[in-house]
Amino acid sequence: MITVEQAEKTIQSQLRHFGVEEVFYETALGRVLAEHLYADRDLPPFNRSTVDGIAIKFSTYNDGLRSFKIKATQAAGENPVTITAKDDCIEIMTGAALDDSADTVIRYEDIDIADGIATIKNIEIKKGQNIHLRGKDKKQGDVVANAGRIITPPLTGLAAAVGKTKLWVKKLPRTVIITTGDELVNAEETPTPYQLRRSNGTVIKSVLEKYKINAQLQHWKDDAELISNQLARCLSNYDVLLMSGGVSMGKFDHVPQVLEELGVEKLFHKVQQRPGKPFWFGTQGNRTLVFAFPGNPVSVFMCLHRYFIPWLENTLGIQSQLQGYAVLQKDIYFPYPLQYFAQVKLDTSHQGLWQATPVDTNGSGDFSNLIYTDAFIELPLEKNEFKKGEVYKVWRYQPA
Amino acid sequence: MITVEQAEKTIQSQLRHFGVEEVFYETALGRVLAEHLYADRDLPPFNRSTVDGIAIKFSTYNDGLRSFKIKATQAAGENPVTITAKDDCIEIMTGAALDDSADTVIRYEDIDIADGIATIKNIEIKKGQNIHLRGKDKKQGDVVANAGRIITPPLTGLAAAVGKTKLWVKKLPRTVIITTGDELVNAEETPTPYQLRRSNGTVIKSVLEKYKINAQLQHWKDDAELISNQLARCLSNYDVLLMSGGVSMGKFDHVPQVLEELGVEKLFHKVQQRPGKPFWFGTQGNRTLVFAFPGNPVSVFMCLHRYFIPWLENTLGIQSQLQGYAVLQKDIYFPYPLQYFAQVKLDTSHQGLWQATPVDTNGSGDFSNLIYTDAFIELPLEKNEFKKGEVYKVWRYQPA
Repeated sequence: MITVEQAEKTIQSQLRHFGVEEVFYETALGRVLAEHLYADRDLPPFNRSTVDGIAIKFSTYNDGLRSFKIKATQAAGENPVTITAKDDCIEIMTGAALDDSADTVIRYEDIDIADGIATIKNIEIKKGQNIHLRGKDKKQGDVVANAGRIITPPLTGLAAAVGKTKLWVKKLPRTVIITTGDELVNAEETPTPYQLRRSNGTVIKSVLEKYKINAQLQHWKDDAELISNQLARCLSNYDVLLMSGGVSMGKFDHVPQVLEELGVEKLFHKVQQRPGKPFWFGTQGNRTLVFAFPGNPVSVFMCLHRYFIPWLENTLGIQSQLQGYAVLQKDIYFPYPLQYFAQVKLDTSHQGLWQATPVDTNGSGDFSNLIYTDAFIELPLEKNEFKKGEVYKVWRYQPA
Repeated sequence: MITVEQAEKTIQSQLRHFGVEEVFYETALGRVLAEHLYADRDLPPFNRSTVDGIAIKFSTYNDGLRSFKIKATQAAGENPVTITAKDDCIEIMTGAALDDSADTVIRYEDIDIADGIATIKNIEIKKGQNIHLRGKDKKQGDVVANAGRIITPPLTGLAAAVGKTKLWVKKLPRTVIITTGDELVNAEETPTPYQLRRSNGTVIKSVLEKYKINAQLQHWKDDAELISNQLARCLSNYDVLLMSGGVSMGKFDHVPQVLEELGVEKLFHKVQQRPGKPFWFGTQGNRTLVFAFPGNPVSVFMCLHRYFIPWLENTLGIQSQLQGYAVLQKDIYFPYPLQYFAQVKLDTSHQGLWQATPVDTNGSGDFSNLIYTDAFIELPLEKNEFKKGEVYKVWRYQPA
């Protein structure tokens, strides 16, 4: 039996690259950018008025002039009007372009207009005010977004702004979720008194949606031959197999043996942790990864967030969306020689501190608490007593 | 001009209820549950072995018996085998049901099996060990999830487990995003030197995806008559109009006037804030809400997260996904009589503390910084100097 740290290290040594593909920017949300985005022209592309008012040449103001004839009105998007006469100004709208003949913009609030003449109130005017200069944000050819970033809403906007409507993104692993267990029936079915409706597949699939992985769902009976045939097919069709069930010591726990018969190399079986001790992990020929979690819903959920998602994030080269640190709000006593992952409710104090309040659970079988909690707090193996006020690593499964 | 606080209060006084609808549980992720979910039977529904091993009656062990004849092997999902003879045991798998004849389970690790006889090693056995008792987590009829919760991955699993495949959820507002501005062209088009590609619509739409709102996108020219006709149509077809542009003091800023002509009551215009000062907000007959943001991309983004999303969250009755507190990591000086929302990068320290590092920006026109930052930090109106180490409210736009 290996430690959580060893298990993590083993998994993280199996990062993969699945290549890239091109997607339309409006459907790219949540994907990982695989190319740099460049400014196709200066940003802003012209000297741009940031207010509504009048544009003048500062030197005339400096010479003492305060009243200007409105030569033209210029809306955003129009070609800039040129000031030719000394006492001319342009009535200009937010976002409109200025050419070199104008270098200062005065807000409507700071002028009076009558009979086509704009008169500046008794206020101080600074040369260049209210103008967003061409290229101030970015120069043409500058990188506006680096490869490797998650495509967030502002990034879709930036792609639109630079006219990059097709984006190269990292491909996602082809993923299949496989649940096993004769006692499990579909959610639509009425179970016999000794059966249960299955839920692990749906839960895993839902978690992966955030990462835009559209995983396939399979459920198989605890039949060694059937499992073997189906697994052989999945091993050639997918990059990642996320399994739940069939990895304990039971007589019908065929999964580890069948996987090894099919040439999947076991990298570990059993981790010194609760929940999730019987977790099995292996790979087939530097390609397919098999995460075979125990069938218990809380075990699956913990292993998914503690092992698979961090592997996925590293494989995609993105920052962890899950991991943080929080202050324990209640003592926990855990007497077993296992690393304990306790379900906690997270909140932020008005001092900006993450606080983790453990929720009493009835052991790892009770997944009904997961909906009331936000994270697993990871309590080190070396200790049995964890005190209020101590800070530990947390793995969040709800957005903070 | 009103304060941020007054603007917030005005908007929050306009909460709405859009009714409920039934959706399939597998497509309900991110929606808000509008009914309680109940346990359709006890959870677990039977006394359930939590390990693989043998089931015995404790009294026989207590009487000194250590070797038991394996009467049968029982898998999960099968009807429980009854122990009749004193020295019988059942080889039992994780998840399998026990009836009243067995009350203790011993792990494979703690027994030796030879010739159909299981012999308990020299270890201590406790009555009732390794059994998850019927109804320990929930009793039949207990609420397993309250109405008002966001449907998270574990909640989809819980729905599956109790066989609730159709869920009543809160309806979302029918939302249209309207951008205006003659200078704005589609992302696919090549702008003239004085035009820009538009991005606000895409950004707003992308932000709303998280809340499962599938908003419609519209772009209109700055033409009062066209805007009037189109707005009239939108006011009858939608619950919420999210507009950007046309609310400043410019000659082509028709939006406020047209809205008022169409009977939309102005609740405020202009907020003492940067960015986003020209923000206009109104309602039509206790029904449609109009959030008319300024056209500047950063203004739109700030107003969306500071005003619309909190309104949406309160309307749906869910906890804020955005708001928190963080410790400022750099001094900020802001000399204007406006409440300043600075873009910050957020991280959590190893002490569990939220830290907010301001990113230098070129003023509210530079939306390219939004992709490198995570939140707006809200700096109070009353002060101009904000010191490193002080704690302020943050509004996150990236998942933490």
